[in-house]
Order: sequence, then structure tokens, then C-alpha cells
Amino acid sequence: MIRTIELKETVTASNDRDAAELRRELTARGLFLVNLTSAPGSGKTTLISRTVSDLIGRVRIGVMEADIASDVDAKKIAALGAASIQLHTDGMCHMDAGMTRAGLAGMPTGDLDVVFLENVGNLICPAEFDTGAHVNVMILSVPEGDDKPLKYPLMFQKSDALVVTKTDAAPYFDFDFAAVTRRARALNPGIAVFPVSAKTGEGMRAWEDWLLAERKRGRHA
Amino acid sequence: MIRTIELKETVTASNDRDAAELRRELTARGLFLVNLTSAPGSGKTTLISRTVSDLIGRVRIGVMEADIASDVDAKKIAALGAASIQLHTDGMCHMDAGMTRAGLAGMPTGDLDVVFLENVGNLICPAEFDTGAHVNVMILSVPEGDDKPLKYPLMFQKSDALVVTKTDAAPYFDFDFAAVTRRARALNPGIAVFPVSAKTGEGMRAWEDWLLAERKRGRHA
Repeated sequence: MIRTIELKETVTASNDRDAAELRRELTARGLFLVNLTSAPGSGKTTLISRTVSDLIGRVRIGVMEADIASDVDAKKIAALGAASIQLHTDGMCHMDAGMTRAGLAGMPTGDLDVVFLENVGNLICPAEFDTGAHVNVMILSVPEGDDKPLKYPLMFQKSDALVVTKTDAAPYFDFDFAAVTRRARALNPGIAVFPVSAKTGEGMRAWEDWLLAERKRGRHA
Repeated sequence: MIRTIELKETVTASNDRDAAELRRELTARGLFLVNLTSAPGSGKTTLISRTVSDLIGRVRIGVMEADIASDVDAKKIAALGAASIQLHTDGMCHMDAGMTRAGLAGMPTGDLDVVFLENVGNLICPAEFDTGAHVNVMILSVPEGDDKPLKYPLMFQKSDALVVTKTDAAPYFDFDFAAVTRRARALNPGIAVFPVSAKTGEGMRAWEDWLLAERKRGRHA
């Protein structure tokens, strides 16, 4: 049985302040919050599942799955034995800091080191709302194409890392890794780029090492 | 040189009325408007390009490409020799009827039979706004997965047809065509479903025949 929380939009005018306050509180409690954004079908849940499995015994990861409907993602995570919760956004296309706080209140945060927030599948609205996360990670799958930085620039600007998923499908699509990296860095010179296949495991180690290093850097270790 | 129009949001309270009025006007002028929605990277532009090429000499098609940034899609369409325009939504995640009307004002509609509106790449917001189109077509690509009706139900409810693209990639992904059709029809029993590959041409004929039949049915022929 997946627990589901129905969220209502909070006052967005104060979102930046609420997000900064939430981040401070989480830092003080030693909890590292990771916001994951992407288009629908980019493989966020598969990436999260593999990352949770790979890091079992090293960090305790919980997962909040935000969606406008359904609990299919939270069920997949729960099947791994990890703490997970489903958040319904009442039709809204993004999470904000107040909604993130409401979600965390439903998680066993005292027993966790890291919480992944799987944001609503959308490359537009979530870029505009700080959730209070310590790092923002954007996921782009090979089948979506290498032109996405040109079309959704704000999301690339706001992300600390870009994980390019489904690299095992690269032989069947025209996807230029050098081009996507160049386009992403033109918008955001400091963005870390990780090509991965959660199916074969290729590239997962570099992404996971970055995640653990970011957690340490923020003194959450 | 691609012409670009910068759009501002119109008053949404009256959107349903504006959309109905726009639809009546277009019907009177014999212009058939098709609204295409999908997630980013589903292959909308490739599908449109192939459809435009296949139907040259049978109907005169123009294309409006809506995006929050860039004009890469309008350039691809213009390269086919078809009338095209780029619409920028000022960061907004959807098109409404007023924005659609503003876009049409920049098109040579007197020389066209059909206009495709490529809506912003997003499965959430565009479902909530009637653009004034005669038919709504949703595109879902095989790599996105067959669970999307469960996660974005409103979009499936609002669509007259579902075009499942990138079927040539099906051998490399776990995608259950029967399951996606069953899930879509549970939400919307009348939805037409067309599996296609714009790359190989597989299934294109059935989709194009449906489009031409819908145009005739609305007495736009």
C-alpha cells in the first residue's frame, strides 16, 4: 500500500524565502535533498531505482514521487525496500518549497541521509520553482534528442548536473553527446554531465560518486 | 529567415468562449486546425515533416511551432517549403485560443487548407486550454513508455487521436502497444490510435487517412 499525499499550491510569492528556509533546516538535520527534473518518459524512476540499489549500505535514500496522478512510480521504489511516498500535485505542473515540505513530513526522515524528489515530468514549470533542494539534477534521455538545451534553456541553467539516460539506445538514434554538452555548457558553464545507462550500468559510478561528493561538500555526511 | 511572434498570455477566464469562436471562424473560412501535443522529444516535428511531405499536392498544410525559446523546429519545416511560423510563449507552458489567433494572423491562411499547431512540449498544461483547434492529436513515443495514460490522464481524455511514434525503436524498449491502447481507451473510449514510424513510413498512411477524413467530416474539404 503506497501512501499518497494530495498537495495544494502554496503561496508562490514567498517561495524563494520558503525554499531557502527549508534548505537551512534540512542542512541542520543532516538530510541531503536532491531535486530531479525531466520530461515524461526520460527514465527518472529507472535511474533512481538503480541508484538506490547501487548505494544500499552506503547511504540511506528515500524517494518522493511527485505526479499529477497515479502511484506507479512510488510502487516501483517501494518494491526495492526503500522508503517512498507518492505526492499528487492537484493537476499542477511543478513542486514548490511548501509542497516539498508537506511531502517530507510524510517521510521517515530521521532514518534517512538522502531524499530524492522526483519532480513532475515537465521541462518548463519546475525550472521556475526552488523546491529547497541542495542540488538540482536534470535528466535527458537519448531518444529525446540533443537539441533540448536550445528549447528549454532555463531548465539547463538551473541544474547542477545533467544525466543523459538510455545511452544503450544511442546506436538507434541520432544523438550527439558532444553537441548536447556544448549546448548545455553554453547556458551553464559549471554543469556536470553524466551519460548513463541504468539498464547496463554504464556510467552509473561517475554519477553516484558526484552525488556522494556533493552531499559531503554540503557537510551532510 | 524564420518569422517569430512573441506571445503574451490572454485572459484565460474567457478562453473556452474564445476557442469556440475561433473554431467557428476557421470552419467558415474552410481552414482545418490541428492541435498537436506531446512531451519534449517525442518526435512531433519529425511526424509533422513527414506528414507535410506525404500530403503535398493533396492538401496545403502550414505549421505553427510553439516553444518557449528557439526556432529550430520552424526552420526544419520551412526547409520542406511549407508555410511555417515560430511562436514564442514568453515562458508559458501552453497555447490558448488568443495566442493561437495571434499566430494564425501571421500565417498565409488564404493559401492553406490545414494548419498544424505544434503546442509546447508538455503533457500537463496544454491539456487544460482549448486552442480553437478542430481536432486534438496527442503524440507518445515508444521510448517514453506505455504507462503514460496512468500518469497524464487529462491529456488522453482531451485527445481525438493518439499517434504512437518511433515504432522502429520498439525492439529496444519494453513497450506494450496493447496495454497503452487499453489504458488510453479506458480514459477515452473514442480515441483513435495510430502506431507510426516517421523514419520508415510504417503506419503513416492510416494516420494521414484519418486526418483527411476528419477534415472532410467537418466539411472543410
